[in-house]
Amino acid sequence: MQRRAKMTEQVTKLFSLSADGPEMAAALRLLVGFQQELKTGHIAPKWSLEETRRAIEQLDLSAPVGTEAALGETSHLMENGDLLSASARCFGYFNPTAAGPAILGDLLAAARNPQLAVISHAPASALIERRVLGFLCEQAGWPATSGGHFTSGGSEANATALQLALNRANADYGQLGIAAFDGPPVLYASADSHLAWIKIARSAGLGTDAVRLVPAEVGRMQIPELCSMIEMDAKAGRIAVMIAATAGTTNAGEIDPLSECAEIAAQFDVHFHVDAAWAGALILDPSRRSLLSGIDRADSLTIDAHKWMSAPMGAGIIMIRQPELAGQSYSVATGYMPAGDGQDPYITTNQWSRRFIGIRLWMMLRSIGIEGYQKLFDHHFAMAALLREKLTAAGWTLHNHTGLPVILFSDPGDNLDSQKIADRIEQRGKVWLGRVDFDGKSCLRACLTSYLTGPEDIDLLLAELSLVHEELR
Amino acid sequence: MQRRAKMTEQVTKLFSLSADGPEMAAALRLLVGFQQELKTGHIAPKWSLEETRRAIEQLDLSAPVGTEAALGETSHLMENGDLLSASARCFGYFNPTAAGPAILGDLLAAARNPQLAVISHAPASALIERRVLGFLCEQAGWPATSGGHFTSGGSEANATALQLALNRANADYGQLGIAAFDGPPVLYASADSHLAWIKIARSAGLGTDAVRLVPAEVGRMQIPELCSMIEMDAKAGRIAVMIAATAGTTNAGEIDPLSECAEIAAQFDVHFHVDAAWAGALILDPSRRSLLSGIDRADSLTIDAHKWMSAPMGAGIIMIRQPELAGQSYSVATGYMPAGDGQDPYITTNQWSRRFIGIRLWMMLRSIGIEGYQKLFDHHFAMAALLREKLTAAGWTLHNHTGLPVILFSDPGDNLDSQKIADRIEQRGKVWLGRVDFDGKSCLRACLTSYLTGPEDIDLLLAELSLVHEELR
Repeated sequence: MQRRAKMTEQVTKLFSLSADGPEMAAALRLLVGFQQELKTGHIAPKWSLEETRRAIEQLDLSAPVGTEAALGETSHLMENGDLLSASARCFGYFNPTAAGPAILGDLLAAARNPQLAVISHAPASALIERRVLGFLCEQAGWPATSGGHFTSGGSEANATALQLALNRANADYGQLGIAAFDGPPVLYASADSHLAWIKIARSAGLGTDAVRLVPAEVGRMQIPELCSMIEMDAKAGRIAVMIAATAGTTNAGEIDPLSECAEIAAQFDVHFHVDAAWAGALILDPSRRSLLSGIDRADSLTIDAHKWMSAPMGAGIIMIRQPELAGQSYSVATGYMPAGDGQDPYITTNQWSRRFIGIRLWMMLRSIGIEGYQKLFDHHFAMAALLREKLTAAGWTLHNHTGLPVILFSDPGDNLDSQKIADRIEQRGKVWLGRVDFDGKSCLRACLTSYLTGPEDIDLLLAELSLVHEELR
Repeated sequence: MQRRAKMTEQVTKLFSLSADGPEMAAALRLLVGFQQELKTGHIAPKWSLEETRRAIEQLDLSAPVGTEAALGETSHLMENGDLLSASARCFGYFNPTAAGPAILGDLLAAARNPQLAVISHAPASALIERRVLGFLCEQAGWPATSGGHFTSGGSEANATALQLALNRANADYGQLGIAAFDGPPVLYASADSHLAWIKIARSAGLGTDAVRLVPAEVGRMQIPELCSMIEMDAKAGRIAVMIAATAGTTNAGEIDPLSECAEIAAQFDVHFHVDAAWAGALILDPSRRSLLSGIDRADSLTIDAHKWMSAPMGAGIIMIRQPELAGQSYSVATGYMPAGDGQDPYITTNQWSRRFIGIRLWMMLRSIGIEGYQKLFDHHFAMAALLREKLTAAGWTLHNHTGLPVILFSDPGDNLDSQKIADRIEQRGKVWLGRVDFDGKSCLRACLTSYLTGPEDIDLLLAELSLVHEELR
């Protein structure tokens, strides 16, 4: 008995989180240091890939060093080896600086570690998620019977939408799979949509060919082309199951004509999904909701809380107008799960064991609310306007006109290669921006995504652009 | 300019994590309180579902209260509304008390928020994950060319295995989907396997019917039945693509005969997957690895670091013997992702945006190492032996003989209903255990899963069982 009690004590010492101990204090010191990095740190990785690889390889996985040292070395590796994408000066993709309230909520979820597979094992956590989903559906102008759930990210959310569409299109799909259809089921998305659709269609057993890419013009799906493709496909025996519009394309922040898409979906009786992973955050802003006009007619909607809502990754959301379709997709009976109300997440979602992902957005809403988000959006729109103004004044050519805070531009007449400019700027490490193809052109891409980005960061971006331009021309 | 700078300041104040501020201090106080709960707290939810629902509904989502208050109220909701599954006295499913080093690593990942979609955006984080995967493959006795990645959980890992199997079985699957096969592709798992397989087959477009459940005896897949089912299915035109063995069934912790399964898979040339979500942790323990004998022959392997490895959810792992199969499943070309070495996670995994999930296990390995895990396993095996001994002495009938720390038992002669006993024990709230079907019997299920569980907790479980037995008989 003595020996067993001692064993428990030993193991407890190794595994415990001492929230008031030296390891936690060390973690907090690292986080304070990180907050300073965010305003002034070098953004590109400081080490080469080879240096990073060597630094990791030389650590001996059979010689543990204790929590405090392990934290220090891991943070050191990330600080020197990773891109500082959370920086105020990173004008990169849709990776925000994670917001404090969401990080703290996430910490609470990690420590308490509730299991959201069934509601009865974590009623508070599960109902908080349900409440957040209800609130989002309301903001989107959806009926009170709508629902949804959190996912690992936009890919899982979009994959869920495809399952809803397939189940809606064919009652035998669940049991027989794709074989239940009389011809190949297909889905429609614009050529500028997020090409995770290819992976999603493949993983759903539809194959790459099932993703029908509708031509886009200036980043937006062309409705006449959409119609004629559906009609031609029908003649060829293909079965349309879903139109997936995009609200906020990855390259240019463009929004497909949602109302027209809804119209076509109704006309052909197919599921209408909107991938609003980034721009969907604007449902929280009444003054800008009209940008998403038509979203109230979607059958399902993807939003990533880890994009514009500034939650740490991965916090995807799938909103579902008819939640019973999710039950059809994911229900299963076992001899070891407790009986519930038919809405347990393990029988209405893709995952089984389930982290309390929703606490991140819940904490944002309870801490700063939609007013807080509106201030963020105001700020990003203002900074984008400032950046557009300064880019134009400095002679750069702007390419997209989305109105949202993603700006595509290039050297006038494309004398200088956008990729070369981006590479050189990355190398200098003071700011960071992307390089994308848009409407047949290679463009520089600056996106407002960190709450920290201020006028001085815009000025620095302009200064870097001008310096590199001078150097390369 | 003045106005814009002020706006930045305002937004920064709302969104910042002040790691040395009062909100963080409040979070730490809550965590210290939680650590006390873990040894002595009431385990069942203190509030009824209705009370929890009301408490959540009455919070006004249009009237935010600031981070400190929001944290306090959220923690209060979880403390009263959730099952305390992390408790030392929770003998429930495979939900551990999350370990300190993993929680701190997770916090670092949430705050720094690296984007692991492409290696060049987070080289250190991505290579740390690769290093952990390499280490795990080595422990499993796999060749150095093996690989894998982290997932949201076992479901995503198992779904990935199915994609590997389908791609391996048919070179045209990626492009044409299920239609590339000459007959319905099917997979084999034991009747006691985790029935997420049903959801997985459905989401892969195979349909429920594609999951061929092989009869189990005392929880283990029956090999002669497996063979005859594959042969009969082949005659009926079905195409075997995968045998999915289980190492550590959810109900009873039983392990399928892995070597025999590997043999059959080789004979029929199908993908051999092992779902070792729980028991796979034992690859870290040389003295117990023989329990998993045959795992070195698997083509893919699922382990959940959030089960026996005590990481916070969701931290699934899919290990892959031939990583190039993953590339076939998930590759895609876009105009906005940077060129990489062909191993970027967004083209070799199911997700796109990707959290640094692997930091949790990395931190465990660097902090306490496999020696630390071995102490945990020693402890759990010792506690399970003690519990078996005491249950037998107290006259309970044991049903499974896995040797692993999951114990199924019931009242002798089944005079008392297991569900009633479990319900009454839950209601009393001092300890918690599960109720499952096993080998045609309704059993109580006690699993050692928290590092905190000591001899005094075993004694309390026995005392509760005896008290409730007395009360109900």
